[in-house]
Amino acid sequence: MWSTTDIAMMSRAIMLARRGRYTTRPNPNVGCVIIDSHGAIVGEGWHQRAGGPHAEVHAWRMAGDKARGATAYVTLEPCSHYGRTPPCAKGLIEHGLQRVVIAMTDPNPQVAGRGIFMLQDAGIEVVSGLMADEARQLNPGFLSRMERGRPYVTLKLAASLDGKTALANGESKWITGPAARQDVQRLRALNCAVITGIETVLADDPSMNVRYQELGYLQQQLGEDELIQPLRVVLDSACRMPLNARLLQLSGAVLLVSCQPYPAEFCEALPAHVQCVQLPGIDGRVDLAALLQYLGKSCNSVLVEAGATLSGAFVSCGLADQLILYQAPKILGAAGRNLLQLPPYQQLSQIPALQLIEQRKVGVDNRLTLKIGY
Amino acid sequence: MWSTTDIAMMSRAIMLARRGRYTTRPNPNVGCVIIDSHGAIVGEGWHQRAGGPHAEVHAWRMAGDKARGATAYVTLEPCSHYGRTPPCAKGLIEHGLQRVVIAMTDPNPQVAGRGIFMLQDAGIEVVSGLMADEARQLNPGFLSRMERGRPYVTLKLAASLDGKTALANGESKWITGPAARQDVQRLRALNCAVITGIETVLADDPSMNVRYQELGYLQQQLGEDELIQPLRVVLDSACRMPLNARLLQLSGAVLLVSCQPYPAEFCEALPAHVQCVQLPGIDGRVDLAALLQYLGKSCNSVLVEAGATLSGAFVSCGLADQLILYQAPKILGAAGRNLLQLPPYQQLSQIPALQLIEQRKVGVDNRLTLKIGY
Ligand SMILES: NC(=O)c1ccc[n+]([C@@H]2O[C@H](COP(=O)([O-])OP(=O)(O)OC[C@H]3O[C@@H](n4cnc5c(N)ncnc54)[C@H](OP(=O)(O)O)[C@@H]3O)[C@@H](O)[C@H]2O)c1
Ligand SMILES: NC(=O)c1ccc[n+]([C@@H]2O[C@H](COP(=O)([O-])OP(=O)(O)OC[C@H]3O[C@@H](n4cnc5c(N)ncnc54)[C@H](OP(=O)(O)O)[C@@H]3O)[C@@H](O)[C@H]2O)c1
Repeated sequence: MWSTTDIAMMSRAIMLARRGRYTTRPNPNVGCVIIDSHGAIVGEGWHQRAGGPHAEVHAWRMAGDKARGATAYVTLEPCSHYGRTPPCAKGLIEHGLQRVVIAMTDPNPQVAGRGIFMLQDAGIEVVSGLMADEARQLNPGFLSRMERGRPYVTLKLAASLDGKTALANGESKWITGPAARQDVQRLRALNCAVITGIETVLADDPSMNVRYQELGYLQQQLGEDELIQPLRVVLDSACRMPLNARLLQLSGAVLLVSCQPYPAEFCEALPAHVQCVQLPGIDGRVDLAALLQYLGKSCNSVLVEAGATLSGAFVSCGLADQLILYQAPKILGAAGRNLLQLPPYQQLSQIPALQLIEQRKVGVDNRLTLKIGY
Repeated sequence: MWSTTDIAMMSRAIMLARRGRYTTRPNPNVGCVIIDSHGAIVGEGWHQRAGGPHAEVHAWRMAGDKARGATAYVTLEPCSHYGRTPPCAKGLIEHGLQRVVIAMTDPNPQVAGRGIFMLQDAGIEVVSGLMADEARQLNPGFLSRMERGRPYVTLKLAASLDGKTALANGESKWITGPAARQDVQRLRALNCAVITGIETVLADDPSMNVRYQELGYLQQQLGEDELIQPLRVVLDSACRMPLNARLLQLSGAVLLVSCQPYPAEFCEALPAHVQCVQLPGIDGRVDLAALLQYLGKSCNSVLVEAGATLSGAFVSCGLADQLILYQAPKILGAAGRNLLQLPPYQQLSQIPALQLIEQRKVGVDNRLTLKIGY
């Protein structure tokens, strides 16, 4: 059904789409390639930032007249609605495309198929489903928000080989090496929000922002002005947040989530970039499902960087989608601090199912990516 | 200094030596290659089992007359003493070798250099040191016994990603998958002894032997009659060993190590293949240095397969040389059983230094080999 040209071109479109992964949010990553009847690439592009042109627009601008009678490969069904830009389906029609190959339809069930219909209605041959799995992997966050109404949740954890995050006395600087810590900076830059628990704030007073100078090789690809700081979220059910916490001082949006109202004088003393929200609690602690529903309005993907309590809670209630574990080649001993607080399982059949997706060395440490099944 | 022929031939000799790694103990693994003046291999061999011919003997037998004027590559300095076989140095002289290339000298400082001297004295050109590091790696156990008077100690551990060996209730069947369990069988077959602690015996009643049917691909290389069962050692300071333990029933040598004498009636009831030894204690527990000195008389290498207490004790007293960790892609949670009991470190600078030597997938699990530095 698919020719080698089809596969090669869609692969390129997917690769182009990936270039936008630090900058398009809350929009999806999309790539587009246009080839003429000889199979030569005449136009290509990717969505670069929300508010900017869609991938297709870049591609047909580059193709110009050569778009007539050409084939377009798009990683996501072209849009059919008037938003900040006119519908791409309309543009493809106007530029005379003859065939459009689509990796996946629009994840929003309310609009899925409309772009395809618009194209077909204009006599364009449309085929879809080429490399759909790969295209889905471009946008786990966007798809989660569209399909489930909540962000894609990644737990970031760092531990020794015996699963410890610190010595018994709390000493943990540094378990992992500089390369892993740099990698965490890039992970933060990929996510719309970084979530932590109040205990981590009280213990470590972290800044939780992305430091451009620590992005390593990413600095070659991403200008300092293109970097989007993630929203920093602190779960603080009982309003224990100290006003002098480092993360409140640094510019960049902060969200404090509690289960009771913060005192008026606390709120008044907060800088303008800090917001508070009160959400329902379960047993006196922020209801994580309610939290994700709230964040799902604006965030595609969130990174949880917390201690064993909150990280474990995300797993326990089945809301963590993926775990990224930095594993240092060290042993700290049984007395050290544990990685994850989980329910008191009685049988191994009850533990969450993990699937190893990727594994690689980051400096001296191992980085494991695991999908969590429930 | 070394020609590409030299390197190629010594590499082959090392590869041949490895073929004996399940069967030569307590002797070292040794390989030998003989080439004629045109560089063609005319003889080769490896030491196959203690009491059998040395590597050089196999090689010169194969070479016959072609050994005259030829060059021999040997991974270990040829022996100079009359043992179960006449000295190999003498044989090389008698067979007319012209040049002998040696990877490393005899590790026994009392005899090192004697074989070389014997050869040189007979007018043979001798060079040594080619691929010495690689040759040393053939025989970590033999070298440890010769140089340090104690066996090379490998800790085998199996755990989840969060460093747990079992759920809180002790449930641990199975953390790792079948491929990792098969790999442990091969690891046992490689070692002269397997050591465990009495608590593991009381909790799991293990058999601790090698089951030929579970050796997997190794069955193609190793006949059932060639398999040497490791000595099974139980550390049982206070003589708590139950007479009905499974490992006492199975044939194959067992050593019970205590710090006080076993009751006479217990000893009388033991099968003939079970020996008891009383060793000095430290704080009422078997002195591990004394244990290793004792085992060093006959064992090149030992595998510690114990719980967090004994495994941790080997690390704490600086006597574990290497750690092989099977890591299952699972998370068990903070309440699970810990991997290693270590001293109460106050600073990360105090933890043992680990060096990752090798890492590979074994079925669904990861297998990490780490050298421990103190
Ligand atoms: N190794 C790593 O990757 C890593 C990363 C981050 C932190 N840490 C370490 O972790 C330590 C702190 O760990 P921790 O476990 O005590 O704290 P934590 O997980 O960071 O925060 C736990 C707190 O979050 C609040 N929370 C709000 N809603 C919650 C919910 N639904 N479920 C669970 N908690 C909720 C609770 O306090 P309220 O009830 O007051 O809301 C809870 O005590 C620090 O020492 C830090 O250094 C390690
Ligand atoms: N995950 C794995 O790879 C693995 C492997 C084996 C066992 N296990 C599990 O480990 C659990 C048992 O662990 P455990 O830590 O309680 O027992 P253990 O480490 O197997 O045995 C500890 C016992 O060994 C004796 N011992 C003698 N000399 C010692 C010394 N110098 N230092 C320390 N101990 C010495 C001590 O008893 P005395 O004072 O009476 O001599 C001590 O209580 C079992 O549930 C088993 O399933 C796991």
